[in-house]
Amino acid sequence: MASIFSTENELLRTYLLCVSVLALKVLFMAPLTAIQRIKNMAFINSEDTGPMKLKPKIHEDVERVRRAHLNDLENIIVFFVVSFGYILTNPSLAFATLLFRIFVAARFVYTLVYAIYIIPQPARFFTCAVGYFTTVYMAVQTIIHFM
Amino acid sequence: MASIFSTENELLRTYLLCVSVLALKVLFMAPLTAIQRIKNMAFINSEDTGPMKLKPKIHEDVERVRRAHLNDLENIIVFFVVSFGYILTNPSLAFATLLFRIFVAARFVYTLVYAIYIIPQPARFFTCAVGYFTTVYMAVQTIIHFM
Amino acid sequence: MASIFSTENELLRTYLLCVSVLALKVLFMAPLTAIQRIKNMAFINSEDTGPMKLKPKIHEDVERVRRAHLNDLENIIVFFVVSFGYILTNPSLAFATLLFRIFVAARFVYTLVYAIYIIPQPARFFTCAVGYFTTVYMAVQTIIHFM
Repeated sequence: MASIFSTENELLRTYLLCVSVLALKVLFMAPLTAIQRIKNMAFINSEDTGPMKLKPKIHEDVERVRRAHLNDLENIIVFFVVSFGYILTNPSLAFATLLFRIFVAARFVYTLVYAIYIIPQPARFFTCAVGYFTTVYMAVQTIIHFM
Repeated sequence: MASIFSTENELLRTYLLCVSVLALKVLFMAPLTAIQRIKNMAFINSEDTGPMKLKPKIHEDVERVRRAHLNDLENIIVFFVVSFGYILTNPSLAFATLLFRIFVAARFVYTLVYAIYIIPQPARFFTCAVGYFTTVYMAVQTIIHFM
Repeated sequence: MASIFSTENELLRTYLLCVSVLALKVLFMAPLTAIQRIKNMAFINSEDTGPMKLKPKIHEDVERVRRAHLNDLENIIVFFVVSFGYILTNPSLAFATLLFRIFVAARFVYTLVYAIYIIPQPARFFTCAVGYFTTVYMAVQTIIHFM
């Protein structure tokens, strides 16, 4: 069992790789928000508009990216912890890797269809659900294993 | 000390169990929001209303669940990391398990009194404070231990 | 390699220390929000105003603290996980400690210039960027190492 906590552990390496890629993806939402704010001249802090002294403004395209960012926090950060518990249940490397890849892919597609190139529902609902139930599955497995 | 990083470690098992239960609890806020959105026909994305073409609408019952969700992120996710540090300070199994259970219970009651069956203050304040100070205590203990 | 997972590991101790300090910093945003709500009598939940029965009110000083809190979630919580992966890449203790200290300092200054004593841009932009690129650097190093 001790071998789980070793960087020789292939599953831990896969976990760290997925987590780092997802972290960069979450961080990328910040410049994406900034781009939308500049494009639509929709700033929320009075000190951000410089000498132009624009009034704070809410723009739907900015809010959409912000909601996608919040949805990342709600789902990806929970995944960070749940998947860490899951790898400690000693799952098969192939299956756990598959779950991780599905989750990562689902989150990228989610942001794409929600905040970059808007595709009609149920595209967003479906991609969100894939990531969601992957996480639920892993959490339930972890609970059963350590109960 | 190496025994801390082992799934034989009873405290790590308790930690993984609590974390997974709390993760499911956070994830559950998403369908709760969806239920309130449908119940009140208060959708925020234009593509969500389908052929009905409803205007985006803000409804207090939806916002309440969303605030409870955000409060979970602010508190539960910090707990995930703080309690991980705390178990590495080698606390007594009984006391740490008690703290974890208090936190989990407080967060469930918090959501109940805030977003499901609204109970007058200070019910919400008190349950939030219980979880809050449990986390503060563990963070302070971790700092003292590793300083 | 196994020595990474040991509380004898100096870098792990530094990590746990930084993480606990940052956790307390994030938690501190809640009373800061409460202070602004009381100062400006700007409550959002009808049950919070007691017998005064104030109407829910949005106040810019409250929203500013709340945005700083959300920015903490977006950046600090991602750091929690990314820096955990980074310490497993076996970096030099001195350099990793320096990165952690820069990040912690940047986040404290960020909150100061955004929500406590407002300083004109680019103060906020710069402090946010320092923490941001520290995290991006560590995530990229982790990906390269475990790929």
